[in-house]
Amino acid sequence: MTAQVSRVQDFGTLDVTKSVRSRDVSGAVERLTALVESDMDRVNQTIIANMQSDVTLIPQLAGYLIASGGKRLRPLLTLASARLCGLTQGDEAINLAASVEFIHTATLLHDDVVDDSSLRRGAASANAVWGNKASVLVGDFLYSRAFQLMVADRNLATLKTLADASAVIASGEVAQLTTANDLGTNHQDYLDVIEAKTAALFAAACQVGAEAARAPEAEIEALRTYGHNLGMAFQLIDDALDYSADQEKLGKSVGDDFAEGKVTLPVLLAYEQGDADEQDFWRRSIERLDQNDGDLDRAKALIARHDAIAGTVAAAERYGARATAALASLPPLSDGVQDIREALEDVITFCVVRGH
Amino acid sequence: MTAQVSRVQDFGTLDVTKSVRSRDVSGAVERLTALVESDMDRVNQTIIANMQSDVTLIPQLAGYLIASGGKRLRPLLTLASARLCGLTQGDEAINLAASVEFIHTATLLHDDVVDDSSLRRGAASANAVWGNKASVLVGDFLYSRAFQLMVADRNLATLKTLADASAVIASGEVAQLTTANDLGTNHQDYLDVIEAKTAALFAAACQVGAEAARAPEAEIEALRTYGHNLGMAFQLIDDALDYSADQEKLGKSVGDDFAEGKVTLPVLLAYEQGDADEQDFWRRSIERLDQNDGDLDRAKALIARHDAIAGTVAAAERYGARATAALASLPPLSDGVQDIREALEDVITFCVVRGH
Repeated sequence: MTAQVSRVQDFGTLDVTKSVRSRDVSGAVERLTALVESDMDRVNQTIIANMQSDVTLIPQLAGYLIASGGKRLRPLLTLASARLCGLTQGDEAINLAASVEFIHTATLLHDDVVDDSSLRRGAASANAVWGNKASVLVGDFLYSRAFQLMVADRNLATLKTLADASAVIASGEVAQLTTANDLGTNHQDYLDVIEAKTAALFAAACQVGAEAARAPEAEIEALRTYGHNLGMAFQLIDDALDYSADQEKLGKSVGDDFAEGKVTLPVLLAYEQGDADEQDFWRRSIERLDQNDGDLDRAKALIARHDAIAGTVAAAERYGARATAALASLPPLSDGVQDIREALEDVITFCVVRGH
Repeated sequence: MTAQVSRVQDFGTLDVTKSVRSRDVSGAVERLTALVESDMDRVNQTIIANMQSDVTLIPQLAGYLIASGGKRLRPLLTLASARLCGLTQGDEAINLAASVEFIHTATLLHDDVVDDSSLRRGAASANAVWGNKASVLVGDFLYSRAFQLMVADRNLATLKTLADASAVIASGEVAQLTTANDLGTNHQDYLDVIEAKTAALFAAACQVGAEAARAPEAEIEALRTYGHNLGMAFQLIDDALDYSADQEKLGKSVGDDFAEGKVTLPVLLAYEQGDADEQDFWRRSIERLDQNDGDLDRAKALIARHDAIAGTVAAAERYGARATAALASLPPLSDGVQDIREALEDVITFCVVRGH
């Protein structure tokens, strides 16, 4: 049993299959990458070729973000889903996987503008280097390129899936603007926001892989469900890490969510269980954004007192268990793809234990 | 002969057909609207239905801009092009026309953020009312909705046309960022920017109408060429108006381009013909953005001294003449659509003479 998994088990709610627990999940994403390596190389080539432009600022800015060490988790899910559904040559999944990464990158660029973030993946964010204007417009460019790539595949099912996901993502981002700084946000509102801003693209990334493979409806649905629940778990842990992570390991600014007054699950749980004094603190710091030195430390201490990180991780584990169940619901697969299924299982656990 | 047309003739380069000169063009857009009125009503219904969302900020903000009195020129071009190519029932052009307006609205929202504009169509711009963050995200939402609407039509040709146009628009906007404040911009660079930021969507709006009608390639190309040249003329006049218009009539802030240091044709022409003192003035105000009270008036005076408005209008007229020629190149059309062809001709003249 690995250190990471034991750490999660401390929260007492781990619910993953025995087979996952018996494997080391720390390199799960890397192992999945290795399994689809030649396809992933082509995705990277497609990404690089399609961010070129005579307008040199576009490849500069896009390349900065795209080359800055993201795990390419979403395009990886597209490739793995396509393989799992029997697409032995990845041809039809390459453009889709690149499109998914472009849509993701476009949302990161716009997110950083909206959040006034100065760090992304451990380096200065693109808007900090090139300014908000360039980030908005290069985001638009990448988003358009994503649609050009999808149109080139001439598959209306995958076009619909990613157009729908994009609309959900955008509306979720707007919803997040309106729930920010409101401690009256209920758990369902919070879950709706993370569904839209994160889980929708994870779900679509898996779904289009299955659609590219012309998989039966039940397989498409199972992979979509896997992606959705994986995305929910991923974002819950992201929100936990913003109060609990080692900044260097996380590669983003710890405390960003607090500084912006984002109402995430760790805050909601601590607020709901807090006494009058504590609730006053949260209202001042999160709702009125009246923050002083030491407030982030106090927020962390209150979150720890009320086991709000553990509560958030527990919620992530519940989604992780649903992702595991969705994978298990797939019909028996050909021998050649059993390793991909196992790697996708391990990715669930990785997403839950990462950074802790 | 109308007052507007005489005004253009003062510049001595008017080159439009006699038939256009003999009609009053001031109501050209309204007349074209009347000719496709029932389709336009359905486009407006489609627009309103598709900007709805549980996230109330989306219809609020989108509705503010969409309802604020734009002429719907671009969707009108789509409907008119479809009719001209024989689509008697507009069904297949309705979603496309709404998509074109959504793409246009999304670019306006992002433009106003990028330009820090406070006025749009004579009222406070959306970003001035709701802030830049909401404008960025609602723009993303409208852009996604545009693709959802197009996907619903299941026509890969029109999807490709509008995905391509969107990528060109975005790259043009980035290019404009990099040419801003650079008086070394040559005429071709300037024309490339306005081609991308304006003419590309005019061209695509016409093209998709013809494609929806399954028109022969020559008709698609003729209408695309019409739209491209109309868009070039439209933007040249827009850039002239920023130094010459009656602010109330124009419905946007006169002098915005100057305040932002945009290098447009009126500035380039005045700069190139200016003496050393004048060039110093332009370098200080446009390149270094070191502007004082009275500088806008001086800029206008220098532009007048060098006939730079007339030069810009003359360039617009040359594009207008090409748009007229493209319309004339269409094969003989059925009697029922001759009035639409005439209205499209008048729209060219209207675009050239508007606001003067």
